[in-house]
Amino acid sequence: MSELLPNYLAGQWQSGDGPGTPLFDPVLGTELVRVSSSGLDLQGGYAYARDEGGGALRALTYAQRAGMLAAVVDVLKANRDRYFEIALANSGTTRQDSAVDIDGAIFTLGQYARWGAALGDTRWMGDGDTVPLAKDGSFRSRHVLVPTRGLALFINAFNFPAWGLWEKAAPALLSGVPVVVKPATTTAWLTHAMVADVVAAGVLPAGALSIVCGSARGLLSPLQPFDVVSFTGSADTAATIRADDAIVRRSVRVNIEADSLNSALLLPDAGPGSAAFELLVAEVVREMTVKSGQKCTAIRRVFVPASCYASAGEAIAAALAQVTVGNPRNSTVRMGALASRQQWEGVHAGIAKLRRHTEVLYDGTSAPLVDADPAVAACMGPTLLGGSRPDEAAVVHDTEVFGPVATLLPYDDLEDAVRQVRLGQGSLVTSIYTQDAGQAAQAALELADGHGRLHVITPEVGAAHTGHGNVMPMSLHGGPGRAGGGEELGGLRALQFYHRRAAIQASAPVLDALEAAREAHGTAD
Amino acid sequence: MSELLPNYLAGQWQSGDGPGTPLFDPVLGTELVRVSSSGLDLQGGYAYARDEGGGALRALTYAQRAGMLAAVVDVLKANRDRYFEIALANSGTTRQDSAVDIDGAIFTLGQYARWGAALGDTRWMGDGDTVPLAKDGSFRSRHVLVPTRGLALFINAFNFPAWGLWEKAAPALLSGVPVVVKPATTTAWLTHAMVADVVAAGVLPAGALSIVCGSARGLLSPLQPFDVVSFTGSADTAATIRADDAIVRRSVRVNIEADSLNSALLLPDAGPGSAAFELLVAEVVREMTVKSGQKCTAIRRVFVPASCYASAGEAIAAALAQVTVGNPRNSTVRMGALASRQQWEGVHAGIAKLRRHTEVLYDGTSAPLVDADPAVAACMGPTLLGGSRPDEAAVVHDTEVFGPVATLLPYDDLEDAVRQVRLGQGSLVTSIYTQDAGQAAQAALELADGHGRLHVITPEVGAAHTGHGNVMPMSLHGGPGRAGGGEELGGLRALQFYHRRAAIQASAPVLDALEAAREAHGTAD
Repeated sequence: MSELLPNYLAGQWQSGDGPGTPLFDPVLGTELVRVSSSGLDLQGGYAYARDEGGGALRALTYAQRAGMLAAVVDVLKANRDRYFEIALANSGTTRQDSAVDIDGAIFTLGQYARWGAALGDTRWMGDGDTVPLAKDGSFRSRHVLVPTRGLALFINAFNFPAWGLWEKAAPALLSGVPVVVKPATTTAWLTHAMVADVVAAGVLPAGALSIVCGSARGLLSPLQPFDVVSFTGSADTAATIRADDAIVRRSVRVNIEADSLNSALLLPDAGPGSAAFELLVAEVVREMTVKSGQKCTAIRRVFVPASCYASAGEAIAAALAQVTVGNPRNSTVRMGALASRQQWEGVHAGIAKLRRHTEVLYDGTSAPLVDADPAVAACMGPTLLGGSRPDEAAVVHDTEVFGPVATLLPYDDLEDAVRQVRLGQGSLVTSIYTQDAGQAAQAALELADGHGRLHVITPEVGAAHTGHGNVMPMSLHGGPGRAGGGEELGGLRALQFYHRRAAIQASAPVLDALEAAREAHGTAD
Repeated sequence: MSELLPNYLAGQWQSGDGPGTPLFDPVLGTELVRVSSSGLDLQGGYAYARDEGGGALRALTYAQRAGMLAAVVDVLKANRDRYFEIALANSGTTRQDSAVDIDGAIFTLGQYARWGAALGDTRWMGDGDTVPLAKDGSFRSRHVLVPTRGLALFINAFNFPAWGLWEKAAPALLSGVPVVVKPATTTAWLTHAMVADVVAAGVLPAGALSIVCGSARGLLSPLQPFDVVSFTGSADTAATIRADDAIVRRSVRVNIEADSLNSALLLPDAGPGSAAFELLVAEVVREMTVKSGQKCTAIRRVFVPASCYASAGEAIAAALAQVTVGNPRNSTVRMGALASRQQWEGVHAGIAKLRRHTEVLYDGTSAPLVDADPAVAACMGPTLLGGSRPDEAAVVHDTEVFGPVATLLPYDDLEDAVRQVRLGQGSLVTSIYTQDAGQAAQAALELADGHGRLHVITPEVGAAHTGHGNVMPMSLHGGPGRAGGGEELGGLRALQFYHRRAAIQASAPVLDALEAAREAHGTAD
């Protein structure tokens, strides 16, 4: 049997009970390591995180905690090569796709280290201006943000074992809140390796970072009112979390990022041959194939004017035909594996479901694999479907197939396009392609209430734009409705989830003393 | 039988099925009116609110909607005398206590009208600065806040039939979001009268304001992902709401304000005879007796240095003994009724529960009533309990008795005091009494994470401060943990609950067009 990875809880490495659950190489099918969370004393571990980790973090200033994030960056950079090896083995991703996860994590941590340093040696944040309450101005209201005195539990998705941890941990640790991460079992190895390196380097206080690998069962029960939970994954698991007594009865704050039927929208002005049209085709192909389409932000629905339906389908299909699929150890391979054979089966089932209501514009499901056994590997070429009769294809707006799959959908006019995008019931991101800045702005505003992010691609940013699916730490990540209703990142906005807001109503001398305490003593224990 | 109040839904007055539930005069025991929500087409009514009401509101600018709020203020002022009559009859409150609700509502609406006017003729709000994404600065991220395209459902508490509606409706309507209010049945008449007057005055677009009176059963089922729910009431009902599929599966955004064991804290420096000591005594007596202690913000726990326990108890008891209780129609009565005989029974039961672990410092439960029949009226004098052995009195930190009841608790030192305040597991407000500005600031910061508001009373603001329990629209109202984790008011902060935040990533020309569209077309349909 392979190695059983221990959990890190209560400042100690602790193996779970039993043989554990194995993790596999999704290309070769070989067993890599095992994980188990059985029999852990979660209640004791959580108390240690809150008291030891939280206490030590809150005793530091934002700038000091930012310095810790910079130290984490150094640790990760020093071990970066090994992370690429683990990603190759456990996620089956090409080097370029692994970088989205690993270098994305390091970049995001680095940003929060910079933003945190700018907060200076303070221990709480002001929120807005001081306003008068009494008519004579002698009694006033000042809002402050102070770190919550609980822990942050992350229940994460399999597609970003590196970034998924650090994009959440960076704002949490910077806020002074200790982290317990439960990575998705399928790809938990990379998360585990990073946590182990950071723990070994001793750059964080004891209790500031813990990891539990294996089943999520029982993880929520010991949560207390000042803890927070951030979940990324399926809508069904999200519903289970939201219905837990921790949230329902103990008001534990929860952030959810779930399913999302993201869209790409070609505006009516941009016909075939236009730069905007070409940019849409390139972006759709990129989003379908990066990480084999296993990004929560990936384009699932492509809306084009009905007059462009045929030409867009042909152009996307032609580009997809160039994508080589298989073992990422072969340098000619552009697209590696899905995360597991189970995912591979799920994507096949999802395509079959969509095909009942769509036509196939490009079928990559039986494309030849490079250096990979089709009976074993979780590899699959990209598939473009088409909903030429969109009102018969409600399933296209409801079903997230988490792989290299998208559906092309024609629209009559912009109103019809907006109506169809809205059938997704809330998404993380829609990208808009046009030659016209005014129309772009109007479309973005029209869709803003249903999305966490609108990505507008006009020809002048054809080279400079950051990608439909790339989550930049400067921008909000999350979306309403089906997407879970959560908010992550967005620069320092992310810190609010880990803080509590309070209004302090007092005399001017008391509020002056408050400001003086901001740098001197703060809320440290 | 008394009049059956109709519901206003889908732009029409509609009576519910059946005889309905009667509302009573809590002093005289007489039946006043009846309500029923049976058999209503909620789905149709909600759709009308979203489409007609929401569409019309979103077509207006913030300043135009602020003008509507000012018009509502005029309507309410014109009918103010009748509201006091209804409050007297249905809530059994003195004129001064009715004013907290009625004039508090008008004041809050007026504030939002002023703040909204300052937002100008725009249809969305900017959020933070535009930041560069590409290294050359050509591709940038701009966050916007746009109104959610759903409705706001308010499920409200019995203690503030006027303010409870308008403190929520003001920011919702100003945001461009239509309102459906379900007042608590016991005191629904006043809410109903205000809605009826505003509807009759025609100052809001059709569908912008609806009211359903009676059972809350089935109210959440027709909610859709872009709707929001704001609830004020018991922790048990809050749990039922949070566990509903609307929230769990459809990501309906929810704001909860539930139980709260608010505190008053005399700091160690302020002994008997000091101005701070006297201010604490006065504020505790006021909070115990205003609206018969039926305020979610009322002081339930009073912490004093052990050396002051006896003198504080005596001083508060002496003041409570001066409070006349009974029929508010008699001008000598200072404290009227609880909202119902059912509440009266609940408060008696709550006192009995607390008495098992506390001593009675002042017993008002059998105080003589002025012009009221003790066998009928929901009137009761104030009761002060004392927990001289606080660690035996865990129940004091867990049990909210919603009436004229508070418990005095001694502490050893400030650390012990903070520890005991924290046993409340999250509260709406703690007030702090001291002669020392520096200690006040430190204590406020130390407690900020567990409270939505800290109210600091030093002698220089003894006359100017706005009251422990008074919710000023400038300050946050809400609290973590047991208090439900919600946030209301706090000036324009309240608008965020009714908006969706989105990052718009685009070129500088597109973002320029966006700003230009802010005043011209916005997101109007």
